[in-house]
Amino acid sequence: MKKSVNVNLGARSYEIVIAPGLLGQAQPYLDSIIAQRRVALASDETVLEHYLEEFTPVLDALTRRWDIYRIEGGENAKSFAGLERLLDAMLADGIDRHCLVIAFGGGVVGDVAGFAAALLMRGIELIQIPTTLMAQVDSAVGGKNAINTRQGKNLVGSFLQPRIVLNDVSVLSSLPEAEFKAGYGEMIKYGLLRGESEFSWLENNIESILRRDPATLVDAVKLGCETKAAIVSEDERDHGKRALVNLGHTFAHAFEAQAGFGHMPHGEAVAVGLIAACDLSERIGTCAPGLTERVRQHTLKAGLPVTLNELSNTAHWDANAIYRSMQHDKKTVNGRVNFILLKGPGEAFVSADVAESQVIATLQAVGAV
Amino acid sequence: MKKSVNVNLGARSYEIVIAPGLLGQAQPYLDSIIAQRRVALASDETVLEHYLEEFTPVLDALTRRWDIYRIEGGENAKSFAGLERLLDAMLADGIDRHCLVIAFGGGVVGDVAGFAAALLMRGIELIQIPTTLMAQVDSAVGGKNAINTRQGKNLVGSFLQPRIVLNDVSVLSSLPEAEFKAGYGEMIKYGLLRGESEFSWLENNIESILRRDPATLVDAVKLGCETKAAIVSEDERDHGKRALVNLGHTFAHAFEAQAGFGHMPHGEAVAVGLIAACDLSERIGTCAPGLTERVRQHTLKAGLPVTLNELSNTAHWDANAIYRSMQHDKKTVNGRVNFILLKGPGEAFVSADVAESQVIATLQAVGAV
Repeated sequence: MKKSVNVNLGARSYEIVIAPGLLGQAQPYLDSIIAQRRVALASDETVLEHYLEEFTPVLDALTRRWDIYRIEGGENAKSFAGLERLLDAMLADGIDRHCLVIAFGGGVVGDVAGFAAALLMRGIELIQIPTTLMAQVDSAVGGKNAINTRQGKNLVGSFLQPRIVLNDVSVLSSLPEAEFKAGYGEMIKYGLLRGESEFSWLENNIESILRRDPATLVDAVKLGCETKAAIVSEDERDHGKRALVNLGHTFAHAFEAQAGFGHMPHGEAVAVGLIAACDLSERIGTCAPGLTERVRQHTLKAGLPVTLNELSNTAHWDANAIYRSMQHDKKTVNGRVNFILLKGPGEAFVSADVAESQVIATLQAVGAV
Repeated sequence: MKKSVNVNLGARSYEIVIAPGLLGQAQPYLDSIIAQRRVALASDETVLEHYLEEFTPVLDALTRRWDIYRIEGGENAKSFAGLERLLDAMLADGIDRHCLVIAFGGGVVGDVAGFAAALLMRGIELIQIPTTLMAQVDSAVGGKNAINTRQGKNLVGSFLQPRIVLNDVSVLSSLPEAEFKAGYGEMIKYGLLRGESEFSWLENNIESILRRDPATLVDAVKLGCETKAAIVSEDERDHGKRALVNLGHTFAHAFEAQAGFGHMPHGEAVAVGLIAACDLSERIGTCAPGLTERVRQHTLKAGLPVTLNELSNTAHWDANAIYRSMQHDKKTVNGRVNFILLKGPGEAFVSADVAESQVIATLQAVGAV
């Protein structure tokens, strides 16, 4: 049932392995990478409670010395203080340029541990073992890491490609329902970015995915990873094409900012953002009518919100305020908002040339006033 | 009188321009790089007092908006707190991925501003305008940046190659004597790394250099930059050959650690470290006798210390303690100390295979007990 995806980046190329039960069988994949060097295992309490026992014999076989570094506090750990704490703990223990970091957890662990690995003695090697759907299909692939500052999310960070990504779909079985679904928001994005047959495949397999059938999950995670890997391979440093992975995100970030960050799962904001991106594409005529309704139906089936009020019934969804928030996004240049639009599944493009009135109409279509 | 050195790093290649009076004539070099984009000028009070007036009309012509970010406190600014303060100030002002950072100052400014540029939105463009001899010949070239932690110096950092380095030798005229001489310690290193004719040139021109004759300074700075550029071009990420720029530094770091960091100028420790590296090379027979005495005489002429007691008459220069300190250096693997040794000028190599007794004898030769 094992599948594999290559991220082609010359000397920094690596493999993403996707399989059920991978954690306990990880040794052959990690043997030559770790080569008995010392390992810093960065994780959080929830992941360690569930999976440390299964992973311990593998680590014991891979190296004589590995230590655990806990990254707690969720999104709050993505701060200067959290980064400094982790680096300080690693340096105090004597972690040096010959050691490796394994980021074993969700997006926060991947971000903070990846950032620490990038900076410790100007960069030591990193292995990603993501444990959430969101991290497996998206954040653990592509080498980006970051922390938040008081000015916004992910404003300070770096690039460090991992040596390998191990996506064990079995660990997704312990994910809380809401977190799994939020991760599925990014999966819809990759289906839309990839093409008609892949998006149809998601439509036809949503029940198996939601029931977390291992074989279907392997294919679904592979679809996400393949799509992201292809884009990252063309534009590692985010100078152009990599912007496409932000499909739905110009909207999603503005929704999150308007409601206050942390008031909703990111993946839910992405779900409504994708519907908005499709609506805007239809509205300005780049995309044939019908896609928005298809995406809306699929999102409903996934149990994800399809309107702003479903996203939050306490936020004030003012269309003009949301638009102004987009204008202040870090990706905005000279107040011209960049939208990722679709001509159809598999045909995304960037446009900084969308009339404000069209955006307002789209925001109203998803429930803004 | 203008000279220029290319750092060849593929898409990240850049030019080092060396000339007197360059600051006031910098516009043609920066025009196409800055392209009227917003600039964050990072500097310190001393540099601004001396040179802001000269640089202001150039900046005014290059961009409609530039702001000053002060990095104060010397080596103390090379901390998490200092880095966070700078990034926070830049982000609060709206510095984004389309802006550039100019690091205008000595090694500390270059390190902290370079690190901030590397991390702000995962990397924005950087221009180095170093104002000390140490920074012009060494730290501003090659893209390394770092901060210190409680565990040691430069343990956390990254790589970001500048778009251009402007070395105005005229600004060296305001450098305090001790700082100029300390920078000259690194110059001796590059003379030794480069070759016999270049080291002889330094021997023959030391008086002009110490008197800060502009034309001689241009050639001397060029010698340092050329030597470092050649090494960095072959090994940007410090996986092998770049270790050679640490000639004398295995000793120097141990001297600094033994005396307590900050108790002596780094360049003075390097001067004694270079004599020790030559002594060790002669002692184990890789280098013909005589070089150590030549370097010692040259170092004396430069007004730099040639023994540990001249470096500090309060530190306890215990040979065994210094050796143990080397074994704890971040570049040491499994307790095997890496030494950069010489077969002669221009012929440096790395050895992890030097007997402890030989090192102790060398330490005693420079005054350890």
